[in-house]
Amino acid sequence: MSNRKSKGMSFPWLAQVSQMVDAALDSVIPGCGAEPETLLRAAMRHAVFPGGKRLRPALAVAACEAALGLGPRPENDIRLAAVIRAGAAVELVHCYSLVHDDLPCMDDDDFRRGRPSCHSAFGEAVALLAGDALLTLAFELLMRPEFVEVAGADRACRCALELARAAGSAGMAGGQALELTMPRQSWAGRLCEAAEAVQRMESMKTGCLFEAAARMGGIVGGADEPAMGALSRFACQFGLAFQIRDDVEDAVAQDAESGRITAVSVWGLEGAREQFGASMAQAAQLADVFGEAGSKLRDMVDLISFA
Amino acid sequence: MSNRKSKGMSFPWLAQVSQMVDAALDSVIPGCGAEPETLLRAAMRHAVFPGGKRLRPALAVAACEAALGLGPRPENDIRLAAVIRAGAAVELVHCYSLVHDDLPCMDDDDFRRGRPSCHSAFGEAVALLAGDALLTLAFELLMRPEFVEVAGADRACRCALELARAAGSAGMAGGQALELTMPRQSWAGRLCEAAEAVQRMESMKTGCLFEAAARMGGIVGGADEPAMGALSRFACQFGLAFQIRDDVEDAVAQDAESGRITAVSVWGLEGAREQFGASMAQAAQLADVFGEAGSKLRDMVDLISFA
Repeated sequence: MSNRKSKGMSFPWLAQVSQMVDAALDSVIPGCGAEPETLLRAAMRHAVFPGGKRLRPALAVAACEAALGLGPRPENDIRLAAVIRAGAAVELVHCYSLVHDDLPCMDDDDFRRGRPSCHSAFGEAVALLAGDALLTLAFELLMRPEFVEVAGADRACRCALELARAAGSAGMAGGQALELTMPRQSWAGRLCEAAEAVQRMESMKTGCLFEAAARMGGIVGGADEPAMGALSRFACQFGLAFQIRDDVEDAVAQDAESGRITAVSVWGLEGAREQFGASMAQAAQLADVFGEAGSKLRDMVDLISFA
Repeated sequence: MSNRKSKGMSFPWLAQVSQMVDAALDSVIPGCGAEPETLLRAAMRHAVFPGGKRLRPALAVAACEAALGLGPRPENDIRLAAVIRAGAAVELVHCYSLVHDDLPCMDDDDFRRGRPSCHSAFGEAVALLAGDALLTLAFELLMRPEFVEVAGADRACRCALELARAAGSAGMAGGQALELTMPRQSWAGRLCEAAEAVQRMESMKTGCLFEAAARMGGIVGGADEPAMGALSRFACQFGLAFQIRDDVEDAVAQDAESGRITAVSVWGLEGAREQFGASMAQAAQLADVFGEAGSKLRDMVDLISFA
């Protein structure tokens, strides 16, 4: 992970996006003191700040730029300001999912990124509500006049629909439910089936939100249907590579939870690396569809490549 | 409660709205078998069916009709079909809040309406995800082409914004967090303060969603600003009366959770009845603003009056 973090430094636009997203999130979750009325907001902020690289908003920005092209149109700056808000909405959904994922009835994690998880710091009930409120805020952000007036009501509706579908029972929440009910030990001798099931679950759990980020960027940038298709396929390959990379790193660090079905447990370390390489190659090809305007998409691919 | 239920029978339009809402909800949460992939959907359906009187959708319909007026405009039927979807979205938010409210870390209720609560039937993790997915589905419903194309993208955005604000940290989730942190024993001698705090918490926890239902109905019906204001005030008084009525019924049935601060514990039984009467009178007056077109709003008031 440290490798990946340091690599972020070599893409100044990523740091800039991260700052802009943080500012947008800061403005919608106002600061708070110690009184009970603000406890919920404090828990929400705990879940959102300090953020990581804000990878999903970065993908939305990269996709928006790919759709807009690079011409010095004055409209571009306005569109990029709007896509920051769209990216912030995706980030809120990501943050809420981590809060609920950490709860005792789910993964029961007391720590997240080296800090107490939300429920460790605020108790289970407040953490539950904070997650609910973050999910709700994601949609509020896309429906506020600041976004609707810039993106246009039609595009705002399309963005919110992408986000809802990606987060709901056919997307992230569905993937989490699948994982809960996926048999852990009974795949012996059925590797192909296991691989398919894992890939499907991972793509719902993680891939759908990446795809939504890319498509929302495309919508804000005015992408046509073929461009939207390319952005979707890019995000799917990117998300798949991202997940396999995590599995490989966990396996190398011998950090894998025993019994969990991962890319490595299904394909072996070398096989997983091959799959990773294939997804990365496809993502790079899809970024090239956009020519020069796809340069930030290519940066995203570079960002998750092994050193 | 049985009294209130039987009263519903005397308003045929209420039963009709309830059926239409159920049909809309049924179509967005497809049926499911026993395989693991559909477990989440089964839990979602458990939380949504069988429904009660669907009071919030009924309020949306009543508000929409008040805004439209009663003229036999062909447009009215289309608007009423759209407001059913808006009402169904509010109902999904209501259902999700009950699922999360029943969880062990919140009220820890094993039963709801005489049936096992969602987590009793499906386990905590699946219930948590089902609540998340129902909240997400509420916004999906408002962003689907079936709603956006009929209501118009601008109005769809305004409806979703109302719902998000009512459900989030400044509304329902915020009210629930306030209740968690509200001192239970320390109001002695500070009745006015307690009454204010309780009213504020109740209005966030319950009132905001009633207000959103009414305002969404108004938006779909094309209400102007003064009409929107009257609908808001109607819904606030209606919500307040609704809550006091519950408190009074619980107190009479000696079913009140000891230590909980309610309208009755603050004002006494007679005082609470007076407050109830005052809110009902104001709601009735506000319904009259709409003349004949306010008849369904008046029905709503009648519905929650004591026998």
